[in-house]
Amino acid sequence: MSTPARTAVTPTREENYAEWYQQVIRAADLAENSAVRGCMVIKPWGYALWENMQRVLDDMFKATGHQNAYFPLFIPLSFLQKEAAHVEGFAKECAVVTHHRLEMNADGLLVPAGELEEPLIVRPTSETIIGDAFSRWVQSYRDLPLLINQWANVVRWEMRTRMFLRTTEFLWQEGHTAHATRQEAVEETMRMLEVYATFAEEWMAVPVIKGEKTAGERFPGAEQTYCIEAMMQDRKALQAGTSHFLGQNFAKASAIQFLDQQGAHQHAWTTSWGVSTRLIGGLLMTHSDDDGLVLPPKLASTHVVIIPIYRTDADKARVIEYCRNVAAELRAQRFADRAVQVVVDERDERGGDKVWHWVKKGVPVRLEIGPRDMDKDSVFVARRDRAPKDKQGVPRAEFVAGIAQLLQGIQDGLLTRARQFREQHTRTIDTKEDFYAYFTAPSVPENTPTPIHAGFALTHFSGEVELEERIKNDLGVTVRCIPLDKSEPGTCPFTGNPSQQRVVWAKAY
Amino acid sequence: MSTPARTAVTPTREENYAEWYQQVIRAADLAENSAVRGCMVIKPWGYALWENMQRVLDDMFKATGHQNAYFPLFIPLSFLQKEAAHVEGFAKECAVVTHHRLEMNADGLLVPAGELEEPLIVRPTSETIIGDAFSRWVQSYRDLPLLINQWANVVRWEMRTRMFLRTTEFLWQEGHTAHATRQEAVEETMRMLEVYATFAEEWMAVPVIKGEKTAGERFPGAEQTYCIEAMMQDRKALQAGTSHFLGQNFAKASAIQFLDQQGAHQHAWTTSWGVSTRLIGGLLMTHSDDDGLVLPPKLASTHVVIIPIYRTDADKARVIEYCRNVAAELRAQRFADRAVQVVVDERDERGGDKVWHWVKKGVPVRLEIGPRDMDKDSVFVARRDRAPKDKQGVPRAEFVAGIAQLLQGIQDGLLTRARQFREQHTRTIDTKEDFYAYFTAPSVPENTPTPIHAGFALTHFSGEVELEERIKNDLGVTVRCIPLDKSEPGTCPFTGNPSQQRVVWAKAY
Repeated sequence: MSTPARTAVTPTREENYAEWYQQVIRAADLAENSAVRGCMVIKPWGYALWENMQRVLDDMFKATGHQNAYFPLFIPLSFLQKEAAHVEGFAKECAVVTHHRLEMNADGLLVPAGELEEPLIVRPTSETIIGDAFSRWVQSYRDLPLLINQWANVVRWEMRTRMFLRTTEFLWQEGHTAHATRQEAVEETMRMLEVYATFAEEWMAVPVIKGEKTAGERFPGAEQTYCIEAMMQDRKALQAGTSHFLGQNFAKASAIQFLDQQGAHQHAWTTSWGVSTRLIGGLLMTHSDDDGLVLPPKLASTHVVIIPIYRTDADKARVIEYCRNVAAELRAQRFADRAVQVVVDERDERGGDKVWHWVKKGVPVRLEIGPRDMDKDSVFVARRDRAPKDKQGVPRAEFVAGIAQLLQGIQDGLLTRARQFREQHTRTIDTKEDFYAYFTAPSVPENTPTPIHAGFALTHFSGEVELEERIKNDLGVTVRCIPLDKSEPGTCPFTGNPSQQRVVWAKAY
Repeated sequence: MSTPARTAVTPTREENYAEWYQQVIRAADLAENSAVRGCMVIKPWGYALWENMQRVLDDMFKATGHQNAYFPLFIPLSFLQKEAAHVEGFAKECAVVTHHRLEMNADGLLVPAGELEEPLIVRPTSETIIGDAFSRWVQSYRDLPLLINQWANVVRWEMRTRMFLRTTEFLWQEGHTAHATRQEAVEETMRMLEVYATFAEEWMAVPVIKGEKTAGERFPGAEQTYCIEAMMQDRKALQAGTSHFLGQNFAKASAIQFLDQQGAHQHAWTTSWGVSTRLIGGLLMTHSDDDGLVLPPKLASTHVVIIPIYRTDADKARVIEYCRNVAAELRAQRFADRAVQVVVDERDERGGDKVWHWVKKGVPVRLEIGPRDMDKDSVFVARRDRAPKDKQGVPRAEFVAGIAQLLQGIQDGLLTRARQFREQHTRTIDTKEDFYAYFTAPSVPENTPTPIHAGFALTHFSGEVELEERIKNDLGVTVRCIPLDKSEPGTCPFTGNPSQQRVVWAKAY
């Protein structure tokens, strides 16, 4: 019997994936549950990751012509009701404000008072309140396109919550645009889907499949919902971003009208699109390992941590000074449009404890520098994408000069690894029997305590809503998306009916 | 009788200051009222200003060792009650969430359902919910100081609202810190007051008086509240930022305890400090004029607007090309740590309309360039801090090379002008009669329809709460602050009692 390798996180992914996820969040100090049901506290290490995501996405939105604005947190109940499918979709999970003050009752208890004439909903999404503003802002074809984004918090009263993936309150951005023609709105919908896919792959190192949702998974009130879907290490799918073509539904509900060039009144065509703090959960589940978080360098708030190793006070002073000099040299280098971000960990802790501290936090590159390294003018380099004990001595100047290349190499390696993982766990299937066998096969590796899902299946599908529903009931598997650009006529293995193309099936978060 | 000068905003400041304020917001397209009582929509031009403020403040907070994090929007009612003065201060203006879904009643109306066991308060400020997290994060003296900031929306159910100055929902940052000693917490309180003062003066070009609030104006639950106070053009005071020393009040309420170096349990000492979108109102009322907004260059999202002037299509093409080249040259220059931000207004509108459009929006520098200017390789320059018709021809190369200096000159000029205005309208007063006369004198200039307040008065004050209350009732005037570093013993003109120093009296927003 071999001794199990020591890992920084317990349980491991194989032992219990869901619990491993929670423990990585804890080990990396990203977030914690709060006293308010389903609401998390995003701690500094998690929030810094969100800030980096925001910065990059915000630049991408501005580069595609969008401007930021801010709309009210509260939505009058009557607004939500304007679009029938929309209110149907959100009524079951709304936080409702009914009073505007507190007062002491006869028993000396503080109770809600000052009942509102009309209840207010804490926004679950802002189509209706932004639509109301757009109905004032849009008068003529000259006011279009109107390209707006909002960074905000939203609230959906979820019954089962999980940090980052599904929380009662979450942070997100929501783009809302209005256009003169169907064509322009469709183009906008696709443009922003492309922005999300680029962000996921180039910045998060998370490979995604771009596609359209089936009717059952559409945003309430949309004509079409497009999404990017990623595979997590338990082979489940995570919807990482959505872009909705809303047709004229919300324009009619909110009276967003304009005079066209011929002087005729027209309803505008609108879109909305969003990504949220859920991306942090997706990033975590794509790259992290049994030692904790693994950050893609382009989004890491710290690229390099330097750990001074010493035994005596005399060594301490000179080693720390050397480490600070190396840090200064590194900070003069640039990577992905930023100065290289470096922390020298000068805390009075044991060297081994510091090493594990930063391994768990996922910093891409770790340097350990002791008196003998200094004397050789070299540094010990460990990469977070390799085993913690896989360290290499490198001359200081060579390391400093190569830092950007090293970080890019790690970034590319993470994407490649994730892509390979997805390919290994995606199967093209042509019969109902194979499909059912694939999703009910013993988990791999065999006999692990956590059932592991078989992955993505690509099949033809003739599109019946009842069929998708039956498969969901049988296997817990749904159509994650109808991929773009995959037109390949065939036969649906479930119905024998004709199918235009293959779709992606998977269990989903 | 002279013809009144044409102004872009009606009414003028003299005619009706309060209405002028609303009309500048409208003319510059900064914000608008929404359908939700007291909540505004911050439009792109206003939000861009807030983004610039955020960027600068965030850098200042990080440079002083703070990290961002995010805490829940909702506060359990029981949390708010933990600090007696705190709940007393906020109970009258709380938005209360009582239900978590909507359902159709027998009459077919959508009504709140799923009543919560404990009502949730939409945060009016986050001391109690952050205190709960701090009680977990702080265990040992090694965990201190804990220096956290949050960018967030908050809600206070104000009865009388005014855009930016007092809205039901507003955006702000709230710093929350915990320290091992009273001394360190006091130092933090003063450090952040200093950060706010620096931001106001160096970035907003708004001169401020730093001081302490009297007991009546203290933050509910604080031991001491410090503030920065600015004079608006109607000579009223605007509290532009506050920094609170909370003593151990909130640490005791939330059980923020640590083991000190001797192994004894201690309560931490905490602070909180914040500025909000109110700063935009203060910036507007300090610098703007009867032609609209005036932006200090260091916070302007556009530094220079270029307006091509042409009559024929042939001219149009070559003038626009020339303007784009000038823009490119300007963008290669830097000002206040950013590339110079330039817009070429190529819209198909009349030149005069474009000029007024940008005047009203407050862009610091406007260039008008026509075929004859081009031929001379020169540009016509107008500064927003001077009259709209005050334009000057300048050789292109000279203008481009001098842009940073020009912008800095405008920035400095705005601060100097605001400082002079404040000095002109501040009086040192030593008798009760003079004080009452000062605040009841006919407004200056005489017989203007809007009563204009006399300004700031500096008097000795012996500090009695009832005295301050009486003066407030008599004149609508309060102590805005007890300035720092102004120790000068004397006699209170109202009571004849000894006074340690002069205080600042004014009407206030």
